[in-house]
Amino acid sequence: MSSPIPSLTPPKRILMGPGPSDTAPRVLAALGAPTVGHLDPYFLQVMTETQSMLRQVFRTKNELTLAVSGTGSAGMETCVVNLIEPGDKMVVCVNGVFGGRMADVAGRAGAQVTTIERPFGEVFSPEQIAEAVARVKPKVLGIVHAETSTGARQPLEEISKIVHDAGALLLADTVTSLGGLPVEVDGWQLDAVYSGTQKCLSCPPGLAPVTFSPRAVATIEARKSKVASWYLDMTMVRNYWGQDRAYHHTAPINMNYALREALALVLEEGLENHHARHKKHHLALKAGLTAIGVSYAVAEPYQLPMLNAVTIPAGVDDLKVRQQLLNEFGIEIGGGLGPMKGKTWRIGLMGETCNSRNVLILLAALERCLGDQGYRCASGAGVAAANEFYRRS
Amino acid sequence: MSSPIPSLTPPKRILMGPGPSDTAPRVLAALGAPTVGHLDPYFLQVMTETQSMLRQVFRTKNELTLAVSGTGSAGMETCVVNLIEPGDKMVVCVNGVFGGRMADVAGRAGAQVTTIERPFGEVFSPEQIAEAVARVKPKVLGIVHAETSTGARQPLEEISKIVHDAGALLLADTVTSLGGLPVEVDGWQLDAVYSGTQKCLSCPPGLAPVTFSPRAVATIEARKSKVASWYLDMTMVRNYWGQDRAYHHTAPINMNYALREALALVLEEGLENHHARHKKHHLALKAGLTAIGVSYAVAEPYQLPMLNAVTIPAGVDDLKVRQQLLNEFGIEIGGGLGPMKGKTWRIGLMGETCNSRNVLILLAALERCLGDQGYRCASGAGVAAANEFYRRS
Repeated sequence: MSSPIPSLTPPKRILMGPGPSDTAPRVLAALGAPTVGHLDPYFLQVMTETQSMLRQVFRTKNELTLAVSGTGSAGMETCVVNLIEPGDKMVVCVNGVFGGRMADVAGRAGAQVTTIERPFGEVFSPEQIAEAVARVKPKVLGIVHAETSTGARQPLEEISKIVHDAGALLLADTVTSLGGLPVEVDGWQLDAVYSGTQKCLSCPPGLAPVTFSPRAVATIEARKSKVASWYLDMTMVRNYWGQDRAYHHTAPINMNYALREALALVLEEGLENHHARHKKHHLALKAGLTAIGVSYAVAEPYQLPMLNAVTIPAGVDDLKVRQQLLNEFGIEIGGGLGPMKGKTWRIGLMGETCNSRNVLILLAALERCLGDQGYRCASGAGVAAANEFYRRS
Repeated sequence: MSSPIPSLTPPKRILMGPGPSDTAPRVLAALGAPTVGHLDPYFLQVMTETQSMLRQVFRTKNELTLAVSGTGSAGMETCVVNLIEPGDKMVVCVNGVFGGRMADVAGRAGAQVTTIERPFGEVFSPEQIAEAVARVKPKVLGIVHAETSTGARQPLEEISKIVHDAGALLLADTVTSLGGLPVEVDGWQLDAVYSGTQKCLSCPPGLAPVTFSPRAVATIEARKSKVASWYLDMTMVRNYWGQDRAYHHTAPINMNYALREALALVLEEGLENHHARHKKHHLALKAGLTAIGVSYAVAEPYQLPMLNAVTIPAGVDDLKVRQQLLNEFGIEIGGGLGPMKGKTWRIGLMGETCNSRNVLILLAALERCLGDQGYRCASGAGVAAANEFYRRS
C-alpha cells in the first residue's frame, strides 16, 4: 500500500466562457450513476432515447442521428471524412477559427479545398456563397452556424437553397448554437450537422451529436473508398447505434447517461422556451454592458445570444481582468482567439449558465475589475440596466 | 414547459465481461464533481497529475504520455495514424478481433499492410515475428498484448528486441492489460502504446491513455505529410497537454477527473499489488471453474488474469446462460467475438470488479444457470474450490 493520494476537489466556478458551460445538477448525478455494459439492454434503451431526443433538438427525422464518442472537433472530423473522398472538391467558409479548422480537416481527408473568407466577426452573404459554388462546383460546402471564436451567427436557410441548387451538400457546424438558437436541420435542409455537448446542452464535453440527411447517407453509401477514419466511420458506427447493435467500439457509457439527461432537461423546458431563455438573458446582459460602455464586436443582426463577443475597452488589461474574475469571483469568461486575442472577451450564457443571477453577478464583478484597471463608468450602471430590462420584460 | 421526462436509473450490475468493468465509487464521485473550464488552472493541474500517474502505470519516462479524448479504439487509431504515412510498410499481427481491427486502421492510414496470423486464442512466437520483419522490412510492427477477443497474453519483450534489430518501431495494444498485468513500456522498449480506461483502471470508457517513446516522437517529427486525423494529431495534441497548453480541442473535463482518480486508486494500492490482486482472483476463479468442469480456451502460459476465456460446455445455450446471469443475478459476462461467437464466454475480473466476492457469486450463479440447462456437476464444487484456494493463499 503506497501513501494516499488526495481526492480531487474542483472549485465551483461559474462558467461564462465559450464552453464548457455549467453542468446541470441532474446531469452531474447521471455522470456518477453506476456504469452498465455497453451492450446491456438498459444502455441500448438509453441510446435509443438519446437518438430520439437528439432528433427533436436537431428538428429532424434523420435516421442517422447519434452521438459520436469524441468532442465537438471529432464531430467536425466525422462529418468531413464520411462525405469526402480523396480528390473531392469542398468549399469551406472561413470567418473564424473553426472555419479554418474545417479547411484543415478537409485537406487531411484528401479534399481539394477552396476557402472563401470574411473578416473575423462578419458573416457570408448569399451572393458570396453563390459565386463560390458556381466557380468551384464542389461536392460539399462547409460553414459554421455559430462561430465560437467570434460570436457571429451565420444565417443558413438561404445559403442552403443556393448550395443545393448547385448540386452540393451543406455541412454545418452547430457546436455553439444547438439548444440556444433554432437549428432547423430538416427545415433548412442541412445535410451533415455536428455539435458538442458542453455549450447550450449543459453537459460536460466528451460527445459530439451528429445528424446526416438521407442525401448525405446516400453519398456515404456510394463511396468508392473506405472512410479514412475507422473510429469515425459512420457505415459502421450506424450499425452500433442502429437495430443491429453490431459491436464497433465501446461507447462512453456515463457520458451518454449525461447527454440523455441533458437532452431531457432541454425538452422538459421546451425547445422554444430554451431558445427564448437564451435570447432574454443575452438582451439583459447587453443592456448592462451597453450601460457601462462595453460594446459588441459583432454587428447587431448577427450577434449570438449564447456567446457575447465584446471589445475590451482601451487601456484595460485583458488577462488581469480575466484572472481577477476567476480568482476573486470564481467566474470564467473567455479571451479572444486568433486575431481577436487581446482584443475581445467572449462571455458565454449557455444552457445551465444562462440565468439572471449569472447576468447580474457578471456585470457587478466586471464593473469592479474594470474599475480596478482605472476604467470609469457610472457606478452600478450595468446591474441597474439589466435589472431594468428584466423588470420590463 | 413540456411534461417531465423521468431521470435515468441504471441497474446495479456486476460487470464481469470484457469491459467496461465496475467503476470505483471514488471515480463515480469524481465524474459528478463540478465541471471547470478546460484552461482553468485547476484543470491544467489535473492534466499534469494525470500525465505523471499515467507514466507510473505505463512504467515509462516518455514525455509524450497523455489521455486521448476518445475510447481505446481512438487510442489505436492515434498510434497508427501518427506513425504511418501513405506508403509506409506495416506488419500487423492478427490473432484476434483487435489485431484485425489494427490492420484495417493501418490500411485506411495508407500503410502497405502485411498481416501475419495465428489462430484465435494462440500467440506469436519470436521466430514468426523475426521472419516477418526480415521479409517485409516494415516501418512499424503492431501487436496486441492482451487480446480482448480471445483472452490470450502475447509476450512482448523478446519480440521488441527482434523488431528493433530490424530497424522498426513496435506498436502495442494494452487496452485490456494495463493495470492488470505488467506493461513495461521502457523496460521492453515499446514505441507507441495505447490503452483504455474501462478495463483494469476501474473507470468508465471514454479516454485512451497513450505513450510514445522518444524514437516514436522523432518519427512523428520527421513526417513529410500531415497526420491524416486532425483530432488525433499528436503534433498538436501534445502542445495542448504540454507546457504551452495551446488550445486544440476541449478535453472531456469530467472524464479526465475520473481517470485521475482511477490512476490514484491504482497507485495507492501499489502497481505491483494491483497486478498481484488480478493474478490471485484469476487463480481462484480458475480453481472454481475447473472444479465444475469448465475449461479455458487458451493454453495455460498465455491465459490473461483479467479476462478468462472459457469454452462453453457442450449442450449449453450461450445466450440463455448470459441472459439468466444478467436478469436474475445482475451479472454481465461476455460472449465470444468473431469465430469464438457461441463457443466461448469471456469472464472479466478487472480493476474494481476483481475481488473474492465477485469470484464466489459468479461461480455460485453460474452453477445455477448451468444446472438449469441440464449441465451436471458436483453441487457447490466451484465455490468450494475457490474458497479452498483463498484459504491456502
